[in-house]
Amino acid sequence: MLLSKPFIVGVMGGANASDKDLDTAFHLGGLIASQGWILLNGGRNCGIMHASAKGAMEKGGITIGILPDEDEIQVSEYISIPILTGMGNARNCINILSSHYIVAFPGGAGTLSEIALSIKSKKPLILLNYTRRDLFDEYVDEGLLLFADTPDQVIEIISDHIKKKRL
Amino acid sequence: MLLSKPFIVGVMGGANASDKDLDTAFHLGGLIASQGWILLNGGRNCGIMHASAKGAMEKGGITIGILPDEDEIQVSEYISIPILTGMGNARNCINILSSHYIVAFPGGAGTLSEIALSIKSKKPLILLNYTRRDLFDEYVDEGLLLFADTPDQVIEIISDHIKKKRL
Amino acid sequence: MLLSKPFIVGVMGGANASDKDLDTAFHLGGLIASQGWILLNGGRNCGIMHASAKGAMEKGGITIGILPDEDEIQVSEYISIPILTGMGNARNCINILSSHYIVAFPGGAGTLSEIALSIKSKKPLILLNYTRRDLFDEYVDEGLLLFADTPDQVIEIISDHIKKKRL
Amino acid sequence: MLLSKPFIVGVMGGANASDKDLDTAFHLGGLIASQGWILLNGGRNCGIMHASAKGAMEKGGITIGILPDEDEIQVSEYISIPILTGMGNARNCINILSSHYIVAFPGGAGTLSEIALSIKSKKPLILLNYTRRDLFDEYVDEGLLLFADTPDQVIEIISDHIKKKRL
Repeated sequence: MLLSKPFIVGVMGGANASDKDLDTAFHLGGLIASQGWILLNGGRNCGIMHASAKGAMEKGGITIGILPDEDEIQVSEYISIPILTGMGNARNCINILSSHYIVAFPGGAGTLSEIALSIKSKKPLILLNYTRRDLFDEYVDEGLLLFADTPDQVIEIISDHIKKKRL
Repeated sequence: MLLSKPFIVGVMGGANASDKDLDTAFHLGGLIASQGWILLNGGRNCGIMHASAKGAMEKGGITIGILPDEDEIQVSEYISIPILTGMGNARNCINILSSHYIVAFPGGAGTLSEIALSIKSKKPLILLNYTRRDLFDEYVDEGLLLFADTPDQVIEIISDHIKKKRL
Repeated sequence: MLLSKPFIVGVMGGANASDKDLDTAFHLGGLIASQGWILLNGGRNCGIMHASAKGAMEKGGITIGILPDEDEIQVSEYISIPILTGMGNARNCINILSSHYIVAFPGGAGTLSEIALSIKSKKPLILLNYTRRDLFDEYVDEGLLLFADTPDQVIEIISDHIKKKRL
Repeated sequence: MLLSKPFIVGVMGGANASDKDLDTAFHLGGLIASQGWILLNGGRNCGIMHASAKGAMEKGGITIGILPDEDEIQVSEYISIPILTGMGNARNCINILSSHYIVAFPGGAGTLSEIALSIKSKKPLILLNYTRRDLFDEYVDEGLLLFADTPDQVIEIISDHIKKKRL
């Protein structure tokens, strides 16, 4: 039986990704599941979405995919619960609102829109493996986002965040 | 560990409901969970949403709520996974698209919109405890909806549907 | 130059419609434009959408189409301002919220969802050329909808509504 | 009477803006209207939305506001046609899809999400008065966006774009 209010970590990233980022996403997915957290992403069978869901499901975790599509044709086989929106990119807003914490991998314009929406919604956000930090300086200063270099760092930051909220 | 592709039953119905319908929704929720199916509804802490989620969660089931809101203030405590859309009634479309089978209780205009969207999306649909059948005659004739009087009937109809799809 | 706040009449109805309803929609569109009102509909090049937009544009009116699509491929040539949502049926909510008054022709499940959403949003609503009135009895009693048999009746009812709001 | 297919220019920018940007938005709105183009923006009574709509309406132009709200409480008085979505930030997608050309002023995270969505949708995009160009280098290289320093430059670029599409 699920806890009545599980913690949901949104993992954002490109449909196309480097091998290194795919490996990292797979590893991060596994760590998220091992914490008992739910992994939420865009749900398609490619890129960071597919890799992170695979990592989580192979560790016995629950994975939620918020699909842009109105059918299951492009759903990753590693998504346990596909949510079909039929709303295209408008589903990016749902990804952000439904996650308690966001982790973003390097990605294209879609990922950038999710980072922007995350900041706008004042959700806690970690950028993983990012080099271009200049754009986001003002948001770092406001405490709206952090940077991490490894999945283990991500888990540590989120665990600290949860502990502080409980105190 | 979840099956990789669980069966999702959407339960629609009013924020205000009769005691009889609330009891029936609670009972139906439990039966859905006992089948190993996931229950999906509108997620708020009132009416058919709350009662059906309570029934499912008390039997150890997973419950998904597709909320119209952008925060968790009105989420039922019996929703294990709240999906926050921030889209008002537009979330009704997501309820329908994301369910493999829909059950509708008597309700107000919101429920009627979900019945209509279900028919439009050609999703299998059962109306439970309905008396006003005249409006839907043409859709009954097209095989797009069925009527049931008890939760047990609902489970039997959906189980048959799943068996036929597997053959 | 447009008035700063023009009155917007939403005309809902099926992608498939009888010749009689298409003629009526064309005539109604012309009358709406002649009043200086803006016509809003679902924007596609078929059925009541196309016919009502044609009637309005030929009388010099402005026509707004709220499309389910993310491109202009299926836009009616009689829509002066296409709004592309890329959101499928979720755009039905926008049709209703953006109209100051709704007129619904007989239609399929999509139109029924718009009638339901209109009632839910407590927008003033006229059903034109409808015979199945039984479903809606309770909403008629609550003053949430009216019936009309001709476009002229529709215009008269809406004109009265505007006058009363100005008093 | 409107042309059957008017050209729609989306103007994006912050709810809070510098005096210089507000002046420029007002001036740009007037130039857009003078070209016979329709101005589309987020529709609220503040920032770049309000200033650009005012500029356009005072030159006799039509202004469309795609509101995040489900009512007209925060609509700018200079919006001639308010489209009420009730969908929060998800309406940003509609802003982009419905515009034939996008101009973005400096803004916050909401504007950044619109720039990202514009790039993702491959819509032609001009950034006006921007200094932080580093983030967007790859998209500049792909020809997906341009920079301008004045409203007159914007009009010139869009006019050239329209001419080329007609050839």
